[in-house]
Amino acid sequence: MNPSLQRYLAQYPHRGRLLISCPDRPGIVAAVSQFLFERGANIVHSDQHSSDPEGGLFFMRIEFDLPDLVQRGPEIEQEFRAVSQRFSMDWRLAYASQPKRIAIFVSKEEHCLLELLWRWRAGDLRAEIATVVSNHLDLQETVAGWDIPFHHLPVTPERKAEAEQAQLALLAGRADVVVLARYMQILSSDFLQHWPNRIINIHHSFLPAFVGARPYNQAHQRGVKLIGATAHYVTEELDAGPIIEQDVQRVDHRHSIEDLKRIGRYIERVVLARAVAWHVEDRILVHQNKTVVFA
Amino acid sequence: MNPSLQRYLAQYPHRGRLLISCPDRPGIVAAVSQFLFERGANIVHSDQHSSDPEGGLFFMRIEFDLPDLVQRGPEIEQEFRAVSQRFSMDWRLAYASQPKRIAIFVSKEEHCLLELLWRWRAGDLRAEIATVVSNHLDLQETVAGWDIPFHHLPVTPERKAEAEQAQLALLAGRADVVVLARYMQILSSDFLQHWPNRIINIHHSFLPAFVGARPYNQAHQRGVKLIGATAHYVTEELDAGPIIEQDVQRVDHRHSIEDLKRIGRYIERVVLARAVAWHVEDRILVHQNKTVVFA
Amino acid sequence: MNPSLQRYLAQYPHRGRLLISCPDRPGIVAAVSQFLFERGANIVHSDQHSSDPEGGLFFMRIEFDLPDLVQRGPEIEQEFRAVSQRFSMDWRLAYASQPKRIAIFVSKEEHCLLELLWRWRAGDLRAEIATVVSNHLDLQETVAGWDIPFHHLPVTPERKAEAEQAQLALLAGRADVVVLARYMQILSSDFLQHWPNRIINIHHSFLPAFVGARPYNQAHQRGVKLIGATAHYVTEELDAGPIIEQDVQRVDHRHSIEDLKRIGRYIERVVLARAVAWHVEDRILVHQNKTVVFA
Amino acid sequence: MNPSLQRYLAQYPHRGRLLISCPDRPGIVAAVSQFLFERGANIVHSDQHSSDPEGGLFFMRIEFDLPDLVQRGPEIEQEFRAVSQRFSMDWRLAYASQPKRIAIFVSKEEHCLLELLWRWRAGDLRAEIATVVSNHLDLQETVAGWDIPFHHLPVTPERKAEAEQAQLALLAGRADVVVLARYMQILSSDFLQHWPNRIINIHHSFLPAFVGARPYNQAHQRGVKLIGATAHYVTEELDAGPIIEQDVQRVDHRHSIEDLKRIGRYIERVVLARAVAWHVEDRILVHQNKTVVFA
Repeated sequence: MNPSLQRYLAQYPHRGRLLISCPDRPGIVAAVSQFLFERGANIVHSDQHSSDPEGGLFFMRIEFDLPDLVQRGPEIEQEFRAVSQRFSMDWRLAYASQPKRIAIFVSKEEHCLLELLWRWRAGDLRAEIATVVSNHLDLQETVAGWDIPFHHLPVTPERKAEAEQAQLALLAGRADVVVLARYMQILSSDFLQHWPNRIINIHHSFLPAFVGARPYNQAHQRGVKLIGATAHYVTEELDAGPIIEQDVQRVDHRHSIEDLKRIGRYIERVVLARAVAWHVEDRILVHQNKTVVFA
Repeated sequence: MNPSLQRYLAQYPHRGRLLISCPDRPGIVAAVSQFLFERGANIVHSDQHSSDPEGGLFFMRIEFDLPDLVQRGPEIEQEFRAVSQRFSMDWRLAYASQPKRIAIFVSKEEHCLLELLWRWRAGDLRAEIATVVSNHLDLQETVAGWDIPFHHLPVTPERKAEAEQAQLALLAGRADVVVLARYMQILSSDFLQHWPNRIINIHHSFLPAFVGARPYNQAHQRGVKLIGATAHYVTEELDAGPIIEQDVQRVDHRHSIEDLKRIGRYIERVVLARAVAWHVEDRILVHQNKTVVFA
Repeated sequence: MNPSLQRYLAQYPHRGRLLISCPDRPGIVAAVSQFLFERGANIVHSDQHSSDPEGGLFFMRIEFDLPDLVQRGPEIEQEFRAVSQRFSMDWRLAYASQPKRIAIFVSKEEHCLLELLWRWRAGDLRAEIATVVSNHLDLQETVAGWDIPFHHLPVTPERKAEAEQAQLALLAGRADVVVLARYMQILSSDFLQHWPNRIINIHHSFLPAFVGARPYNQAHQRGVKLIGATAHYVTEELDAGPIIEQDVQRVDHRHSIEDLKRIGRYIERVVLARAVAWHVEDRILVHQNKTVVFA
Repeated sequence: MNPSLQRYLAQYPHRGRLLISCPDRPGIVAAVSQFLFERGANIVHSDQHSSDPEGGLFFMRIEFDLPDLVQRGPEIEQEFRAVSQRFSMDWRLAYASQPKRIAIFVSKEEHCLLELLWRWRAGDLRAEIATVVSNHLDLQETVAGWDIPFHHLPVTPERKAEAEQAQLALLAGRADVVVLARYMQILSSDFLQHWPNRIINIHHSFLPAFVGARPYNQAHQRGVKLIGATAHYVTEELDAGPIIEQDVQRVDHRHSIEDLKRIGRYIERVVLARAVAWHVEDRILVHQNKTVVFA
């Protein structure tokens, strides 16, 4: 565990994050805040969203400090069921003291990987980087020296299913989220089913523009004046999963396809890093192929 | 009253906004949300901010619908005192059905005024424009046709106190907020005391850079690569009041002072319009010369 | 003619803009600058672009002052043919003293129209607004008082061809560029052939995302984190013409479709105004469905 | 030399960049372009700027390919003197085949250094990184593995002059530009005189706001809504040298001073990297404490 993360955990040992989705109706905030207050919690942040006050959905994220949260967690979760059933809630309680473990999948390009590593070392990514998995050896040296295991699992068309089984075995019990940091393979439907809403991809265009392969070539061909990148959860339909974050940068007629790729690298890495940070801090709720991000 | 505002009011006749500042401690959210729930309110939006969970300040804005709010308002305000005293709250309850009345002060430049008028007509400024006051006649024609009174109150160095008395008399009971939309006079300390945190100015620089006169000339002289504008509440120290909103735009060596003024106009009008919209929707809390904006 | 434009013309009575496209090869800049120098021109701005130094295309825009340009223009154009033939140039010489005449087409929404009118009055749009044409009467009052003719030409499915004939007749000899400022009709192929690369449309999405109808609904459905607008020349393929300018603004899960429309209005009007300003200042060259914009 | 840079140099072995400043008058472009054409050059990019067409200054940057430029350079420079004298030019010819050598000065923070190293490895920084100099040992390990010398030269108040002499000795003949990548020492006037307009600093505020120490603390205290960073050439007056590049990012009341520092790191590193890239590609002209950047 890196020192920045250790400092964060030492500072907030009893911090919890409660995430709730349910049909909207009066009394939810009162019930949840009363529940936490009675157990001695101090609410540090609270965000909520109603998709529509009349008959819509209600989303909430509460970050709180509660003495001995880790020890009392099971009991509190048990007790919260009464509240959650009353309001038909989907909910989960996350413990900041149990940081998520990230598995980073890469191919040959290093920029997204490096950004994650650097933010992690700077303490801006409150998670552990459990492993780096690649279908190529190009980035083995980049990872060396970071004290993070690098796994080379080649993927060929014929043996893709086998490779994915090896990946799944490697991840089982060792990772909580998979980040595709310019991983140039399409994951099978079977793989995806093991990790719903837990695989984050960076697509190098402003989706839904330029779905699929070679988006910078498509952008250059179309003559757009802004290029972008999109971080999204991976679903079975290519590049169509819930969008977590997007950003763009201005380009013009002077920029070649190579320039777009170069400029794009800096958008990609920033957009992906933001999305991963939000995920590991339990700031994202997914509903009907869209995200609610309490940034 | 303009039709867009009427539609908004008809849609949300029972909407209230409760704003609270108090020392932070556990139980505030529970107490407030329980209070509202017991009176039949449905919380539509809720924002809160703790300056520091340990011994800091707590700020909250709750937007809710409550049947017959207007009629029951006095009683509810009376009842809320018990809660507010328990937590040493500064608080106020605003009624969306009573839109704020804006007095716009201008001199010769029309761009900020036009932006406010247009957003108002489009329904994006949920307030009434009560009057336009100017020390010049240049914009009288601009206002004509809008069905808004235009008052010409000349200001000379010798008779400034007298002019301000006339302005104050004009505003008394007729306006809730004063917007200085490129009004080129400095208001006296006496005037300001009548309208604390209720006078919004647009300064044509990214404050605190380029305080005082001719900021675009200063910016050109310094060779900055971004120019900006700042909307702030007016206090006695020139250009030093609580900042509400800022924005910038890229410039370069090709831009003359005239170009900076031209580009700046579009930043000024957008920044001012955002600030005024937040003010009239009760989204701003002021504390120690800084703002908390629940945008 | 508005006073700001008159001031500009009085300040630069002899200003010309030479626009050139040709196959790239050495000597073009030398030949053109020598030609202008020999005739007494002072080059004020010069921009050039090579799509590829090896066998690509060369684009140039030169803005210059040349004494008695208007009187000597025909002779100079005649003489320039020798240069243009040597390098196989497409070229044109524009005279700043002959400002372009804009015909604005609108339907019911006023925001893009208002932005153009204000910028025109502020002197930021160096052109004349010749006429406003609409298929509805909603904006007649908006245009009244601006001393600009408003033409109501209703368009029905059955009589669309007839309506377009009336529009073309109205424009003939009276306009140089057509701006579709939220004009909600699709122009026929026949109409477009009369005005190649001279019809500018504002599409309310970041093209090529959300082509076609109701882009804000599409954007809300997809859950994008940025919404945008695109100004482009109109060609036969819907929303697929050369892109002139684009911009975006951040949105999130809190924004309803109505909010997207409201936020979008401010992007649309800015993007369209920039595109029109560039067009009337002869800053745009079109090549193979893409633009070179010397902004 | 890194492989990306080698590829660039192999691709453009004969590329030159001519930079000119002189009083503006007709004929400059013609004379320079004719001079280059006669020697077989192909102009790839050309930028110019007139501070004022009437009696102002003229700035030009021409990038061109000319066969055997390196061998013929001395002769061409000799011949160009006739042109330069005719127009009273300040000028220099830079050879892309001789990439600039950067000395990076750091203290304890790694983010700006890392950004430069990564961009360099990615081929986006067309220069050599000659050395890293630090007054601390903290970043020795970061530099290890990059095959770049790391020099630890401690600086104490008593022995600052001595330390600077050691720094100057280290740089002499080995570096062309000094980049202060969060180097927390103020260089003496004596040091600066050796490197006029060749020392680039990153200041962690939007200058001229928050000059001097602890700008993020100042920004938090003032309650600004945007924080920024500024890359500038270092002159004797602290934080007042010619500004090369600036950028900002939005913050709000929720951000602590620690958050501002964290967010600021990403602005600082991007702004500094852009400025350094422009410098090493000879895109910056300095005149009267301002820069002309042909980006």
